[in-house]
Amino acid sequence: MNKKRMQLQDYMASEQIDVVYLDNPNTVAYFTNFESNPHERIVAYIVTQSDDFLFVPSLEKEEAREQSNVENVYTYRDEENPWGIISEKTFERIEEINLVCTDEASLTVARYHQLQEAFNTTNFEDIGPFIDQMRVVKTQDEIDKMIIAGELADEALQIGMDSLVEGITEQEVAAIIDMEMKKRGVSEMSFSTLVLFGDHAASPHGNPGERQLKQNEFVLFDLGVIYNGYASDATRTVAFGEISEKEEEIYEVVLNAQRTAQEAVKPGMRAGELDQIARQVIEDAGYGKYFNHRLGHGIGKTAHEFPSIHGSNETILEPGMCFSIEPGIYVPGEVGVRVEDCVYVTEEGCQPFTSMDKELATIYR
Amino acid sequence: MNKKRMQLQDYMASEQIDVVYLDNPNTVAYFTNFESNPHERIVAYIVTQSDDFLFVPSLEKEEAREQSNVENVYTYRDEENPWGIISEKTFERIEEINLVCTDEASLTVARYHQLQEAFNTTNFEDIGPFIDQMRVVKTQDEIDKMIIAGELADEALQIGMDSLVEGITEQEVAAIIDMEMKKRGVSEMSFSTLVLFGDHAASPHGNPGERQLKQNEFVLFDLGVIYNGYASDATRTVAFGEISEKEEEIYEVVLNAQRTAQEAVKPGMRAGELDQIARQVIEDAGYGKYFNHRLGHGIGKTAHEFPSIHGSNETILEPGMCFSIEPGIYVPGEVGVRVEDCVYVTEEGCQPFTSMDKELATIYR
Repeated sequence: MNKKRMQLQDYMASEQIDVVYLDNPNTVAYFTNFESNPHERIVAYIVTQSDDFLFVPSLEKEEAREQSNVENVYTYRDEENPWGIISEKTFERIEEINLVCTDEASLTVARYHQLQEAFNTTNFEDIGPFIDQMRVVKTQDEIDKMIIAGELADEALQIGMDSLVEGITEQEVAAIIDMEMKKRGVSEMSFSTLVLFGDHAASPHGNPGERQLKQNEFVLFDLGVIYNGYASDATRTVAFGEISEKEEEIYEVVLNAQRTAQEAVKPGMRAGELDQIARQVIEDAGYGKYFNHRLGHGIGKTAHEFPSIHGSNETILEPGMCFSIEPGIYVPGEVGVRVEDCVYVTEEGCQPFTSMDKELATIYR
Repeated sequence: MNKKRMQLQDYMASEQIDVVYLDNPNTVAYFTNFESNPHERIVAYIVTQSDDFLFVPSLEKEEAREQSNVENVYTYRDEENPWGIISEKTFERIEEINLVCTDEASLTVARYHQLQEAFNTTNFEDIGPFIDQMRVVKTQDEIDKMIIAGELADEALQIGMDSLVEGITEQEVAAIIDMEMKKRGVSEMSFSTLVLFGDHAASPHGNPGERQLKQNEFVLFDLGVIYNGYASDATRTVAFGEISEKEEEIYEVVLNAQRTAQEAVKPGMRAGELDQIARQVIEDAGYGKYFNHRLGHGIGKTAHEFPSIHGSNETILEPGMCFSIEPGIYVPGEVGVRVEDCVYVTEEGCQPFTSMDKELATIYR
């Protein structure tokens, strides 16, 4: 029996919700195990209080029937009107619809209007916060997948470090990492692999380019993979040759902030408190203004989801929540350092998904 | 002067639209030249009849100012309420808002509700069809970029063919293609590179896996790159060793359908007619039921946009429209063949973006 569906239907009964319509591919996969990338086509999971069905393009029929845990799978062809079929299949299960819930943070306005017509009501509410609350606390099965995704990220970091040689470009290192991951059966990275050299890492949003590696500078790796529908994400900054004393000092401050925050995680604390703990370490060292982003973000089916770890987030941490801890110091035009592990909250504290050593690694080659 | 903005503002004046809000990253880049990937953050282009501004996360401030053609760039930090700033900056430009237009096919319901509050009106209409109509006809500058993206796709196909050797896996070939493209400065493929061997290509939506290449089977490549914000997309199917007579026959039918359709393109015809022309060739050869998808899709800033080339699309083709012509025959469990070029419509007919030979190529190795 599908526990996630049961949890959703219990909530629907308690709130008198007649129909839930979900079409964010990650949320559909969360409930049904069917992973898809439908672009402009529709893959939707539709739930009533006593039944459910999956609605997919006819091209995806076989995959949906094989992969999903949903008994009823209906399809539409490109030239058909999907909303008519959705309406028909829903009204086969329920006579009158008084309240529909959707995930408003992902549903488009165009589909919202189509659904109002298909379900013959404008009484729509947002079920996004409830779904987010379900997804934010991971099951053991989800954590097990994320542990493997983390091990693959550790491997990817090692591959990146092993590939460093004077003159290689950022893009080449990123390409080697991605290729080696594909050889290991990783079909998708969780985001575009970042490899940044020296001062180029000082922009927290830089992209790998044709910059060539020189002796005596930092190399920043930020990467992750998707494994069985779950993401990893890790950052390491390593020295290629001798770095300056100031660079080493900056590294130690970032590492200290990262470790202090990671050790401080425990159930019951506010997310914002954790951001503050890391920020304080960096401020005390005099680099506060160079840490210009939040401490971290949630991770799960994607590399960016709830909870956001920023100063004003009042979310209380619970066992099973998963997020990144990634302080950084970016001195414009000079140097950028970031160290990141993603962790899951346990009863006592937290456990990291990645275990690559965080002491400053120096590569001579 | 920005012609695209002028065209939009002329339309706004004629339709008495006070404010247009756009936050699809591709549409924002289309009007402003600022390419972004904001995930859950907001990058929006907001236009009044006499002015415009770009609204971005503070992390993206420098890039937005450097890359965009927009004079006013405003920002927000993660802990700020973006909608308050959007409201303030808009009401600095217009006293009262009676009609707002958004792109309903990309705007989320959550943002729609936030905007109704920010602009103090619920009088919202969809400007999506007008924007689509603008975007569907490419300028010479856009076509020039797509020609280069097409040349890179030709190179990628050649790299894939050169890498074929008995025992190599689909994923390895895909990884080699992606890596070589990265070395050439391609930061992103336009979609996940497809490499499928033998019967595996019989599923039009298969993904490259650990399947190893054997002698005497087909290899299907479907790939493209993003170059300067514009996409390419091409498919070739080649023989690795000797294929059967039936396989060769299927190839010739697909090729004939592809060429017949490509030669038939001319301004003034319906999109659906083109689908029918290719489908007729395949039906006449007795394989009609194995061509189970539309003939093609539009291409531009992404590999999937308007116009859709399916049987019931009444869109009239115009010079500057760009789309794929990609018939295929898929005999489940046996064989899959597809041949695809993307083309742009000219005054006389059309020109392809990719020029890799389409005669059946046989690779002995």
